[in-house]
Amino acid sequence: MENFIYSSGDSKMIDFQDLDHIDGLSISTISANLYNKFRDDLVMFYFRDGANHASVYTQSKIVSENIKWNLNLKSKKIKILLVNTRNANAFTGAKGFQSLKEIADELSSGLTKKQIEDEDKPEKVSSGEIMFGCTGTIGEEFPKEKIKRCLPQLINKIRYTQNKLIWMKAALGIMTTDLKPKLAMEECKIANSKVKIYGIAKGSGMIFPNMATTLGYIFTDADLSNEILQKLLKKNIETTFNAISCDGDTSTNDMVTIFSTSKIKNKKIKNINSEEIKDFDQALHSVLLNLAKRIAADGEGASKFVKVEVNKCKTQEDAKRIAFSIANSPLVKTAIAGRDPNWGRIVMAIGKANVDININKLSIKLGNIKIIEKGQLSKSYIEDDASVYMKEEKKIDIIVDINVGKKNFIAYTMDLTKKYIEINSDYRT
Amino acid sequence: MENFIYSSGDSKMIDFQDLDHIDGLSISTISANLYNKFRDDLVMFYFRDGANHASVYTQSKIVSENIKWNLNLKSKKIKILLVNTRNANAFTGAKGFQSLKEIADELSSGLTKKQIEDEDKPEKVSSGEIMFGCTGTIGEEFPKEKIKRCLPQLINKIRYTQNKLIWMKAALGIMTTDLKPKLAMEECKIANSKVKIYGIAKGSGMIFPNMATTLGYIFTDADLSNEILQKLLKKNIETTFNAISCDGDTSTNDMVTIFSTSKIKNKKIKNINSEEIKDFDQALHSVLLNLAKRIAADGEGASKFVKVEVNKCKTQEDAKRIAFSIANSPLVKTAIAGRDPNWGRIVMAIGKANVDININKLSIKLGNIKIIEKGQLSKSYIEDDASVYMKEEKKIDIIVDINVGKKNFIAYTMDLTKKYIEINSDYRT
Repeated sequence: MENFIYSSGDSKMIDFQDLDHIDGLSISTISANLYNKFRDDLVMFYFRDGANHASVYTQSKIVSENIKWNLNLKSKKIKILLVNTRNANAFTGAKGFQSLKEIADELSSGLTKKQIEDEDKPEKVSSGEIMFGCTGTIGEEFPKEKIKRCLPQLINKIRYTQNKLIWMKAALGIMTTDLKPKLAMEECKIANSKVKIYGIAKGSGMIFPNMATTLGYIFTDADLSNEILQKLLKKNIETTFNAISCDGDTSTNDMVTIFSTSKIKNKKIKNINSEEIKDFDQALHSVLLNLAKRIAADGEGASKFVKVEVNKCKTQEDAKRIAFSIANSPLVKTAIAGRDPNWGRIVMAIGKANVDININKLSIKLGNIKIIEKGQLSKSYIEDDASVYMKEEKKIDIIVDINVGKKNFIAYTMDLTKKYIEINSDYRT
Repeated sequence: MENFIYSSGDSKMIDFQDLDHIDGLSISTISANLYNKFRDDLVMFYFRDGANHASVYTQSKIVSENIKWNLNLKSKKIKILLVNTRNANAFTGAKGFQSLKEIADELSSGLTKKQIEDEDKPEKVSSGEIMFGCTGTIGEEFPKEKIKRCLPQLINKIRYTQNKLIWMKAALGIMTTDLKPKLAMEECKIANSKVKIYGIAKGSGMIFPNMATTLGYIFTDADLSNEILQKLLKKNIETTFNAISCDGDTSTNDMVTIFSTSKIKNKKIKNINSEEIKDFDQALHSVLLNLAKRIAADGEGASKFVKVEVNKCKTQEDAKRIAFSIANSPLVKTAIAGRDPNWGRIVMAIGKANVDININKLSIKLGNIKIIEKGQLSKSYIEDDASVYMKEEKKIDIIVDINVGKKNFIAYTMDLTKKYIEINSDYRT
């Protein structure tokens, strides 16, 4: 699928943004041969003076060993995020957890040694400052040895300033069935200080209906406390990463984490409602939304990117429920794959959302084409126009006005194609 | 897909059962040319002395005009059920409802006239004794004229005793994208009286995740009141038709109705817990389950029939939630289509069901093959055995033991194949 993601809501098409250096962060990538083919599959993010951090994790009742590990971390600062692909380290039990402990111990001693060699004021790196991201197959033994073998090289690759290419390599290194790496960036201000927000993500792959592992990592050079980071992340995740994912319908391994290296000495922020954090807040939303859209657009087998906008509901919860009822409907999604403006299926998906509807107030549009107005087929509706829209647009907008209130929600998804079945029935072979 | 549905839980494979005459009922079928091809698409069930009745309908917030019509019926007895396919009469507004009124008026005068000609004690048929079933495309104008034109012929075809073939014709006449007609029957006793329970159904087509129109019509010659019929239907629908359909995830047109012609003068039943109705209760469950399984097995594009058995939960609701989380998971379903024993996806689907799990008690089997025992990969597990099972069995059993309580639930589904996408992206063309 061609790229058609807009940056920050404007109409400029951007394929890959030009991510640069974030002070305080070094990235190294390597092939640990986890896929038995030539690709990077292990990515290390090293914060030489530590980073403040906040995370949101999967809501699944069965979580991977690395999520358990991360939830146990007590340290205020994180020194390392190590991400591997190919193996989820889920359903691997005590052995899977123990593997992480061994890797963390080796990393901490290796890094402590390197700090002693390189720095004026060496600091011990403890395993409690190491965070893990894992994605891949569930229930296979965690490839501890393969990973351990690569740690010295990963450490050796650490550079004080990194070249731009490393962001692309990192984004490629965390992919599973993604077709494209996902990167996004914004620059903004906190009070008078210019700061950067960079992010990479790993596609759901199986965004439909959202059971794949989604990994998102956001990095900023701003100086923000863990508490502020947590509040900002929580606030902005709802309409971004959670807008491409159904409530509670998540993988064992999902995580989105934001790290701040605090290298820019911006004014201290104590409240996320303060005027001085507004610009950052919006920029963070843009980065998260940009990544989330890229995940939806790169959903397995997708040929169309679909935006479902539900307006004027009594509550945001109602709007969200209707939006996901449409966005997760295989009948709507197959109709889009078939380029068929079968709006009856949209009506059905609205009906099954379990939200009270006044059918006489309902309006439905496909892009700018009015289909239903106040519960009636629009007099201006010509099916051929809708067919042309479905055939020619790569980005399908479904706009539903419920017209009983003031709350809105936008969900993002893609169509459901034969390619999806092909990818997922052959995943392990 | 070959037929592999068991009757009444025994191991005898039965393709089509031999449905016979039900006293008090006449069936006529015709082609009203709704599909513009040669097939019956209009089926009339005529109860010459009326029938007691009970129905369960879709939970969708947008319901078709025929469901609205049926919900308005006040009559204790029903004289006619008229079922058309191809057009759902949903989102057709007042005009769609008015069409039904006109059809009902014509039917009632036509039938009143016929009764006067044929019977000793002619009875007027009122339009309030006429029920409608509709299935097909949403939002298209209801083909009132085509249907009205056929009513005289439908009435003319009424015979006092009907040949066996008529059941097959009726089951074929209500199909949409079903590949096979669905019929089931049981004979049983109420106190000392032998009675029959016959049923036909129309497949979901899109059983995944259950948004298609399911129609089920059950007929008995027993004498049971509307109240008893309602209680029996409600009790038995939960583990049969609702076991192939996710909560609230239903079409605009779903209906399951039971009719009793009261021609067998069995002992009067006042309580569904009475010993004398037990045999009927079980037989009704068998008929409903048999039809429900046929619907799942004939789901669009299905190559495998899948039974998901979840045992030993704290509540039946928990068991049901886990069962549907597995049964509706596109990743589980595509793995089955790909003949891949990818049990990691079953684990993931259990995790996302939002039910508290003690992973150390969890057991998973594929048929008789133990995969997980008490949260550990079984020592006896050989993936090749599981692969052979997935390849060679047409009927895949996923058995999950949660081992924290005593409540169970079984869900039925099918795999998710490329054929499903093909059918649903080309549905209207």
